[in-house]
Amino acid sequence: MNINSPIGIFDSGVGGLTVARELFSLLPSEDIIYFGDVGRTPYGGRSENIIKQFTRQDISFLMEKKVKLIICACNTSSAVAIEDVKDRFDVEIIGVIKPGATVAADKTKNGMIGVIGTRATINSDAYAKTIKRIDPKLNVISHPCPLFVPLVEENYLENEAAKIIAGNYLQVMKDAGIDTLVLGCTHYPLMKDIISQIMGDSVRLIDSGEETAKAAQHYLYSITAVKEFVEKSKGERKFYVSDVPHQFSGIASRFLGHNIDSIEQVDITKY
Amino acid sequence: MNINSPIGIFDSGVGGLTVARELFSLLPSEDIIYFGDVGRTPYGGRSENIIKQFTRQDISFLMEKKVKLIICACNTSSAVAIEDVKDRFDVEIIGVIKPGATVAADKTKNGMIGVIGTRATINSDAYAKTIKRIDPKLNVISHPCPLFVPLVEENYLENEAAKIIAGNYLQVMKDAGIDTLVLGCTHYPLMKDIISQIMGDSVRLIDSGEETAKAAQHYLYSITAVKEFVEKSKGERKFYVSDVPHQFSGIASRFLGHNIDSIEQVDITKY
Repeated sequence: MNINSPIGIFDSGVGGLTVARELFSLLPSEDIIYFGDVGRTPYGGRSENIIKQFTRQDISFLMEKKVKLIICACNTSSAVAIEDVKDRFDVEIIGVIKPGATVAADKTKNGMIGVIGTRATINSDAYAKTIKRIDPKLNVISHPCPLFVPLVEENYLENEAAKIIAGNYLQVMKDAGIDTLVLGCTHYPLMKDIISQIMGDSVRLIDSGEETAKAAQHYLYSITAVKEFVEKSKGERKFYVSDVPHQFSGIASRFLGHNIDSIEQVDITKY
Repeated sequence: MNINSPIGIFDSGVGGLTVARELFSLLPSEDIIYFGDVGRTPYGGRSENIIKQFTRQDISFLMEKKVKLIICACNTSSAVAIEDVKDRFDVEIIGVIKPGATVAADKTKNGMIGVIGTRATINSDAYAKTIKRIDPKLNVISHPCPLFVPLVEENYLENEAAKIIAGNYLQVMKDAGIDTLVLGCTHYPLMKDIISQIMGDSVRLIDSGEETAKAAQHYLYSITAVKEFVEKSKGERKFYVSDVPHQFSGIASRFLGHNIDSIEQVDITKY
């Protein structure tokens, strides 16, 4: 492994940009390659076989770029596919489930943890299983919030409807008396304000993307593979997508916090 | 062309089942093959090139089944791709734009027509252009309603949030004083109640899928290609999809009005 190789990060679409944003901030000198499977988004509603196939292709594309570490920023892929496909590749692959689950298990005081995500993530029960492996005494309440992704992508968060929908979805969490809520989808950090308004200050929100970026940083430091930081020199950041639909750059810049200079399109079905 | 050949119908997902339902009712003796590109749904947010490629593949699959007529039940494909790809295939292809546009132009009294659909359909301006070709004096107000599809698929229609969102989207139509509103997406018939509550009785809703089924019936009669109706014998109905995700059959039965007995999965990327 070459210390100067880039870090690869992929997601089913734009959501993973919230994770990339954390990475940029934690590891400013690293070269980072982002792949967003915008042409086949969303993975959340698809069958397991299709999700595994797409995940293999996403990783194969990044492997071609000779990355030193791969971050699977897609909760659906992390939940359904990563364990199955990681043995095929000779690289460390960090998914978003374990870092978020670990911090939630560590932070809860009353042992009641909530997890929200897409249907596929929640149906996989991946967060609950991981949390239970850490501490079998913890209680996990999982609930899918499938309308959050379109609400975020449509930037419909200021509207009363978003609050009503979030209120409905989260009622089960309030009823259960959780003190920790895992945001198990990389779109959800953009709904943090609404979610914390509903849950109140006493519930700690765990951004699994943010925790994943920290885990990646920790891993690279642990194997002494962090690129040297030369003052004022930022790492190179490249963005690849499988399609460039209308409004892509607007959505992407909201997720990333700044504009993307250049985006390259790849035919991911070839991988 | 063989009069006993099946009719092919395709859509980017389950929405086209509302058109299939109309076809079953209008042409009960016909064998009908439905293909839903559930594995790559939704087309609405994708780029034109991808939509054209998917549309070619969907049609190629149906051509292999030796269909006598193809109905493109997908508004996005009809708006963006059909004109470009139809010359490649030796079969009549009826899209959903023209039938809906024609009836709207015919029915309006005050000359103010509204059109709602996905972003891709509205951005293509296909309905407005078609209506203007019929009568340049007609006024067309188009507006995308991107959250309607997830609201329908999540069966979130009884909730106050759906009414608020619909109210926001449709305000521009009320302000413009339209008397005719084209439902330019096959998901929207399932929102008819909410839409007519908001628009009031004086606004006529045009279901472009229903009008397309009527146009298909008319075409087959015009070339004397309707299969003979033998009492009590219903045509054969086959359903193919590119993926079978969780909850598919539940969603499909709501669109179709009854359960689907058997569904076959095909690898559409091979076509």
